[in-house]
Amino acid sequence: MFEVKSIDETFHIIDQAFSNYYLEDEFLDIRQAVGRIASSDIFSKEDIPGFDRSTVDGYAVVSSDTFGCSGTYPAQLELSPEILMGDEAVRFISTGKAAYVPTGGRIPEGSDSVVMIEYCEDPGDGYIYIEKPSAPGSNIIFKGDDIRKDAQAVKAGTVLRPQEAGVLAAIGITGVNVKRKLRLGIISTGDELVEAGKIPGAAQIRDVNSYSIYAEATNYGIGARFFGIVRDNFKELLETTKIALQECDIIAISGGSSVGNRDETPEVITALGEPGVLIHGISIKPGKPTIIGKAGKKPVIGLPGHPVSAMIVFKIIVRYLIDTMNGIKRKYNPSLNAYMSENYSSNNGRTEYLPVSLVNTDKGFLAQPVPGKSGLIATLSRADGYVEIKRGCEGLLKGQNVDVMII
Amino acid sequence: MFEVKSIDETFHIIDQAFSNYYLEDEFLDIRQAVGRIASSDIFSKEDIPGFDRSTVDGYAVVSSDTFGCSGTYPAQLELSPEILMGDEAVRFISTGKAAYVPTGGRIPEGSDSVVMIEYCEDPGDGYIYIEKPSAPGSNIIFKGDDIRKDAQAVKAGTVLRPQEAGVLAAIGITGVNVKRKLRLGIISTGDELVEAGKIPGAAQIRDVNSYSIYAEATNYGIGARFFGIVRDNFKELLETTKIALQECDIIAISGGSSVGNRDETPEVITALGEPGVLIHGISIKPGKPTIIGKAGKKPVIGLPGHPVSAMIVFKIIVRYLIDTMNGIKRKYNPSLNAYMSENYSSNNGRTEYLPVSLVNTDKGFLAQPVPGKSGLIATLSRADGYVEIKRGCEGLLKGQNVDVMII
Repeated sequence: MFEVKSIDETFHIIDQAFSNYYLEDEFLDIRQAVGRIASSDIFSKEDIPGFDRSTVDGYAVVSSDTFGCSGTYPAQLELSPEILMGDEAVRFISTGKAAYVPTGGRIPEGSDSVVMIEYCEDPGDGYIYIEKPSAPGSNIIFKGDDIRKDAQAVKAGTVLRPQEAGVLAAIGITGVNVKRKLRLGIISTGDELVEAGKIPGAAQIRDVNSYSIYAEATNYGIGARFFGIVRDNFKELLETTKIALQECDIIAISGGSSVGNRDETPEVITALGEPGVLIHGISIKPGKPTIIGKAGKKPVIGLPGHPVSAMIVFKIIVRYLIDTMNGIKRKYNPSLNAYMSENYSSNNGRTEYLPVSLVNTDKGFLAQPVPGKSGLIATLSRADGYVEIKRGCEGLLKGQNVDVMII
Repeated sequence: MFEVKSIDETFHIIDQAFSNYYLEDEFLDIRQAVGRIASSDIFSKEDIPGFDRSTVDGYAVVSSDTFGCSGTYPAQLELSPEILMGDEAVRFISTGKAAYVPTGGRIPEGSDSVVMIEYCEDPGDGYIYIEKPSAPGSNIIFKGDDIRKDAQAVKAGTVLRPQEAGVLAAIGITGVNVKRKLRLGIISTGDELVEAGKIPGAAQIRDVNSYSIYAEATNYGIGARFFGIVRDNFKELLETTKIALQECDIIAISGGSSVGNRDETPEVITALGEPGVLIHGISIKPGKPTIIGKAGKKPVIGLPGHPVSAMIVFKIIVRYLIDTMNGIKRKYNPSLNAYMSENYSSNNGRTEYLPVSLVNTDKGFLAQPVPGKSGLIATLSRADGYVEIKRGCEGLLKGQNVDVMII
């Protein structure tokens, strides 16, 4: 008989069992790689910028020429020809001279400072009058200031964002090696299930999980494939799981994990060979009858048959598993600070995930537990997120600050 | 001469100009529709569940038979045949009887309550002994409890999540009408630009925005197409913009919006006809030289040429524009509560967006301003998010609580 595991023990077991999952690379245009994971470090082959650039529209000067100047006693500097954007010729200025330079323009040799046009007067006499001293280095980005040659531009394991696409474009890299997407195989079990597109009989219900878990997977950036509804039949489930394991990295079998059911999932995991069942039952609410097993190197998950439980388990546990197999640790999850609209008592010895809706008020966001019996699928659709109530915590107080994980 | 607009004025102008943008529908499988916007209300044609179901593994009883029972004086009830999952036959029980029902199983006619197996003893003598009174309705989800016939399952304008896929599958709807994706056309301008895949000359830089803004668009769920780098040349820019307007819903012209540049973008917007330029300059930092115009019904945006400014303007303003054209108002943006690692002085009369990195500490998340000169692209890549410092606010204090918008 398996002992029910805490959520922290569950994460630890997942870390141990699935951290070193191997995923091949694929090469993608950086514009298509957002959300994907860089599979190797990327270094810059050059200094960025490649030349000293002005950060303002202004006049390139020799800074010491401006020391002590003011509106009353401006520094008078002779105008050299204007610097044009993209002008490749090397320009010079020397003491006593200045040259107009646009934002992003190349600083002429000899200049060490740029004065913003706001502090310059140009009466049209061939001289520019500087009304404010400018320190050395002012308004200049020097060669290599942004990214130095040989510096790391992107670290292996980074989840790429538009920002990284920008950095890579800046260093001239327009394609990137990323880990290929994980693939989730979904199997539904249960004698009472019919396909969602069909009309259920008197005691039948539609198979919701093949849709909702598929959507969860694609929403989290991985691939998914549905392998059909399998009746509560050990042999058929074992064969379907074997087929799914050939194509997919993770198998999710939904239903069949409640004590009252025929409970083929753990038997199937055992029949697939070592290491077999790792976790049978997790002390979370909802989601207690979750099973995690390992067949070869691949996880086989028994998701609760109940759609709400299955989705919560996906968001809490399967996402963590996906991150682990992808080799990433998230620093944070998107959440919002809110305060509770009412008391909520928990105290059930399990970590509870309470669906709440959010209302924007003058005092910040108000988190309201979604009314209705627990486990109704419409409830989860009315929720904006959930509040985690730790095991051993007796509940939440009206007005209490809570972190709402956005779902 | 245009007056610089505040960020709130900018949002207001966007609301007024682009709220009623028409987008055709497309019909998608609900598994592929996450992140898309439902284009019409969806109602349930049936009661969900379609029959009274047990929420536990237990015994269906007539509740009044259990009143007054206890561990010492259990209620003795005659066992009727077990209810099987998906069993379509109508079962009955009457007073003095009980029937085993699994989680999700159909409640037999005559029963109004289910007792969890934990509170039942089955010595195998054909009777079940109930040790705890069970109130009417206990552990039952009644027909229609989840979703009533004719109830709204999904509202028009909802951004679909896996939860909505679940609700729709439950009511037998596996395909959904959603608004087609907006398409962003990107044009880069600037005599100093070379394509990112090329080696820049001495005073040239790579065109970063065609990559980063493209990635921003696809990351935010819209389509994108790049129309090339256009030299600072009014006629060429006008022609390219006209071509882009034929295919795309939004045009983003990056570069050319600084005062020091040739500044063709506003002239091009004016040349495209009424209503023309709506906004020329926004009091935000970075991003001040942003232009928003309207050509026919479509927005033409002048993004700052600077990659960091362009990305921030995308995240703050273009995302808002996209939401507006999609007809949605977001209740919240993903953010994290954190406290400042140091003082930061702002007081520049503009709303400032300060890039910060996040460190997880015992006291919560610490927000650290990313070091380095402002405007370096590597800075934005080192940031986890940004803190908005409102116009007129003098800055942030060490230890102050801030909302970090995740980027």
